[in-house]
Amino acid sequence: MKKPSLSIIKIGGQIVEDEQKLKSVLAQFAKIKGAKILVHGGGKAASAWSKKLGIIPQMIEGRRVTDAATLEIVTMVYAGLYNKKIVSWLQAISCNALGLTGADLNSIQSHKRIVKTFDYGFAGDIDLVETSILKQLLSNHVTPVFCAITHDKKGQLLNTNADTIASELAVAFAPFYETTLKFCFEKNGVLENPEDNHSVFSKISFTDYQKYKQVGIISEGMIPKMDNAFFALKNQVDKVFICGAKEIYQANGTSIQL
Amino acid sequence: MKKPSLSIIKIGGQIVEDEQKLKSVLAQFAKIKGAKILVHGGGKAASAWSKKLGIIPQMIEGRRVTDAATLEIVTMVYAGLYNKKIVSWLQAISCNALGLTGADLNSIQSHKRIVKTFDYGFAGDIDLVETSILKQLLSNHVTPVFCAITHDKKGQLLNTNADTIASELAVAFAPFYETTLKFCFEKNGVLENPEDNHSVFSKISFTDYQKYKQVGIISEGMIPKMDNAFFALKNQVDKVFICGAKEIYQANGTSIQL
Repeated sequence: MKKPSLSIIKIGGQIVEDEQKLKSVLAQFAKIKGAKILVHGGGKAASAWSKKLGIIPQMIEGRRVTDAATLEIVTMVYAGLYNKKIVSWLQAISCNALGLTGADLNSIQSHKRIVKTFDYGFAGDIDLVETSILKQLLSNHVTPVFCAITHDKKGQLLNTNADTIASELAVAFAPFYETTLKFCFEKNGVLENPEDNHSVFSKISFTDYQKYKQVGIISEGMIPKMDNAFFALKNQVDKVFICGAKEIYQANGTSIQL
Repeated sequence: MKKPSLSIIKIGGQIVEDEQKLKSVLAQFAKIKGAKILVHGGGKAASAWSKKLGIIPQMIEGRRVTDAATLEIVTMVYAGLYNKKIVSWLQAISCNALGLTGADLNSIQSHKRIVKTFDYGFAGDIDLVETSILKQLLSNHVTPVFCAITHDKKGQLLNTNADTIASELAVAFAPFYETTLKFCFEKNGVLENPEDNHSVFSKISFTDYQKYKQVGIISEGMIPKMDNAFFALKNQVDKVFICGAKEIYQANGTSIQL
């Protein structure tokens, strides 16, 4: 029997924080046929709210250090402000959205990142995704909308990378659905020349990736995104794309392939 | 056929904001057998966060005026900070909680309060409660946790009184469940003498209520709570109590009866 289709779409912070862009992306997202899940970031907005409250955001190698005060702020901004704005806008266009953190339905359980070189504070690394109730909801045409917060099942919320949430969800659902994972962000895809938004690779294999990384064509923030993409492909996710916000509904951007 | 039981428990702001009290209340709540729904306020904390952000909370006759900036804050504090803290703590004691606003699953639809004498801004008056998916979740042992935010199904979130949410939920579920509604707050029940927390009325009928209101024994904030209680009873809700936080699990406090 053919498995039903599932699209997991991750939208990045710059899309989430621009009201016009976000509304246009959600309109595209709502048109996707079959089961779908949205995952959103919101890191830049969290930094802005931190500053308003007199807390200076701390970053180590591009990753946020989440102390107790910062955890309160990201919980408010991701799970409150943006998650509920997105849910209400999707409801307005008849997409039956349900906003979630990993604590809700115990859907994503993680542990506080173990301190090695750096202490990232209340940052969560994912241990398991609980799919049973989510599958029932999907078959009832409910669209889960995840923000970048998980929990440890011991009462502690944890700040968790949204790209990682998207790929872990895709891996967990892949046995049950023909799963497509798309990372949508402010560029049109993986670029050969970071300055030229038209220099999009149409596809990248794992061998290409190793090569491009070595010569520095793929660098910085794109590396964890690519790693999440290959993690998904190596764990039975059917298709993975890195693309712009306009390509949510079409199979454009960069196709990542093993 | 006997209907299954459903307990709808509303906990007030002073309980929500005191970590120790909240944990002890949630432990009681988790022990309730059968289907259950939690509804929580958080108004005092919202005022504190408003002040931190330089926004002076405005109140008219005890009700918050929700301008656009205040709506952002209450969405962050109710739907983000407190709702997710409560969900993660309930998950830690094996209660499969799901945090919700009325926008999620389009569960509570409202309209922006029509301006008569005062303009309360983005305050929502409830039009309908959508029970179908919530009933499925309840039968799967999921515990919905509602905060005081609803939406108008046109993309607008609205600040909505938590007591009213609790009584509207109870009325909507009453045809399907043997429904008990409890308003838990910082006092032990409805008090004959507001200064004496032991002067709890064991029960109050509608006739008693009219009489006590006239002579001023029941006044101020207790009046809308009583009105919500009688609204529920007049619409097929089986049992309504106003009680202290310690009475969640027992049938103590004041029993409200028609």
